[in-house]
Amino acid sequence: MKFAAARLNGRTFIGLIQEENQIFDLQRAEKKFFEMETIPANLEDCMKEGDKFISQVQHLEQRLHKSDDHQELVYSLSDVDLLPPIPRPRKNVFCVGKNYRDHAVEMGSEADIPKFVMLFSKAPTSVIGHGDLIDPHIHLTRELDYEGELAVIIGKKGKQIPVEDALDYVFGYSIVNDITARDLQANHKQFLLGKSLDTSCPFGPFAVHKSAIPDPHDLRIETRVNGEVRQTGHTGDMIFSIASIISTISQGTTLEPGDIIATGTPSGVGKGFNPPKFLKSGDMIEISISGIGTLQNGVN
Amino acid sequence: MKFAAARLNGRTFIGLIQEENQIFDLQRAEKKFFEMETIPANLEDCMKEGDKFISQVQHLEQRLHKSDDHQELVYSLSDVDLLPPIPRPRKNVFCVGKNYRDHAVEMGSEADIPKFVMLFSKAPTSVIGHGDLIDPHIHLTRELDYEGELAVIIGKKGKQIPVEDALDYVFGYSIVNDITARDLQANHKQFLLGKSLDTSCPFGPFAVHKSAIPDPHDLRIETRVNGEVRQTGHTGDMIFSIASIISTISQGTTLEPGDIIATGTPSGVGKGFNPPKFLKSGDMIEISISGIGTLQNGVN
Repeated sequence: MKFAAARLNGRTFIGLIQEENQIFDLQRAEKKFFEMETIPANLEDCMKEGDKFISQVQHLEQRLHKSDDHQELVYSLSDVDLLPPIPRPRKNVFCVGKNYRDHAVEMGSEADIPKFVMLFSKAPTSVIGHGDLIDPHIHLTRELDYEGELAVIIGKKGKQIPVEDALDYVFGYSIVNDITARDLQANHKQFLLGKSLDTSCPFGPFAVHKSAIPDPHDLRIETRVNGEVRQTGHTGDMIFSIASIISTISQGTTLEPGDIIATGTPSGVGKGFNPPKFLKSGDMIEISISGIGTLQNGVN
Repeated sequence: MKFAAARLNGRTFIGLIQEENQIFDLQRAEKKFFEMETIPANLEDCMKEGDKFISQVQHLEQRLHKSDDHQELVYSLSDVDLLPPIPRPRKNVFCVGKNYRDHAVEMGSEADIPKFVMLFSKAPTSVIGHGDLIDPHIHLTRELDYEGELAVIIGKKGKQIPVEDALDYVFGYSIVNDITARDLQANHKQFLLGKSLDTSCPFGPFAVHKSAIPDPHDLRIETRVNGEVRQTGHTGDMIFSIASIISTISQGTTLEPGDIIATGTPSGVGKGFNPPKFLKSGDMIEISISGIGTLQNGVN
């Protein structure tokens, strides 16, 4: 079950990805099949309905597949504009720093491997969707870098969540490119500014429901720049597991449906090369995570 | 012109503070005087109207003072619940670290005086209002600390704002208590977690329109804990001016109406004392800023 937020003819809707690059319009289907309009127009509000929303979607999909005459409810992905699964998050994106040993070392040394989970954030204004262009901010930075990451989308409000229950609070998974201006990151010490430039949080293309991801720690991450493989990681190599990150944040900070947690990047970022391979105008970045898909963004 | 968000009999409204601790109900006044309901229920949306909103408020106030028979539009502050001026910010609160020399030194040494503005954030879930209780999070921290700060509220969307125009983007000023768990702040390196505990961002009581603050760098800040003066600062001592902070953030990150920037704290935080004076259950913290008011919160 892969969800997307999409726009067609000026209308935004929640779609379910079908085979052969098609998208099923859930709002329109509900109206046609059941003469009802209960599905919210944004995924955060859908998630708040919990299992009710998921079974609603299952019903709609069964109904769709019962007959062939509902083609007006299914569009080709190439005909719609894909938005980020959550186009405007209601708070900053939570991000984990240095959550893969090899990346911590390439950014400094063994001493940089964290003992406690390192958390910073990206402003909601930085979020863009699959296919949107990344502004190189050439007046501001000479060291724009990519970071391919597994993103966790929280589906249920929670506080003081025990590690063993933490994955129950996940709605699903997606991909974030944690674009970073390395020079701003270094100069300003705290990461917020160097991580929050407009367009520096490509997010998507889909929110894959957790039911489709048997083990989020058994996924391959690959980042390519202009086709050249730069990062090849495995989510099993995280220092802090997804469950422990969720549990740690929630000990004092309430998590809410629609919260996004970018879980850190494996080694192979531009800064890790000698000489560094920073991004430049015209570059194309693709981040693929097994079971989720590929997030692709060009640099303007 | 001091604005507050308040609740009375289950209804939330935007009020204008009057002399003798009274609050004027703007929405109800508009309805009574002009039979219209155009004023939004939250201050961020009011700000988007720009000068139109301010002149609307002036009209309503003039009308109020023309006669004495509108007492049903004015309540005693003691009869309403004051909310934070922006009860649920639409992104994390921007915070400036170490923006007063003496504070940078008390947290470490002269080497800690920043050369570039240090920016981190607090999650919107941490925001509470004047009079609300601060959770001591005793299961999480033994080093809960206060930080009295001038808060800037952005009133107009902007990007790449020149320093000389930056104050045009300010709606007004308020007070933030940047409550910090020092042990979490130190362990987790990046500040987000130690700064984002629920209830760790007391904010208010009022949003004072900039027209009432001739010079935001000529304000006294005083923080008292149980009546004992801990911080006495002056906003003229900021290392990075309000205009330069706004300009720096906006070079790459769009600022929006309702954005909050806490501008840093002067010396005298609990950690700066020897031995440290951390907060404990039952403490009462008051932060007074000249021209703005006093933000008061107890520790639960």
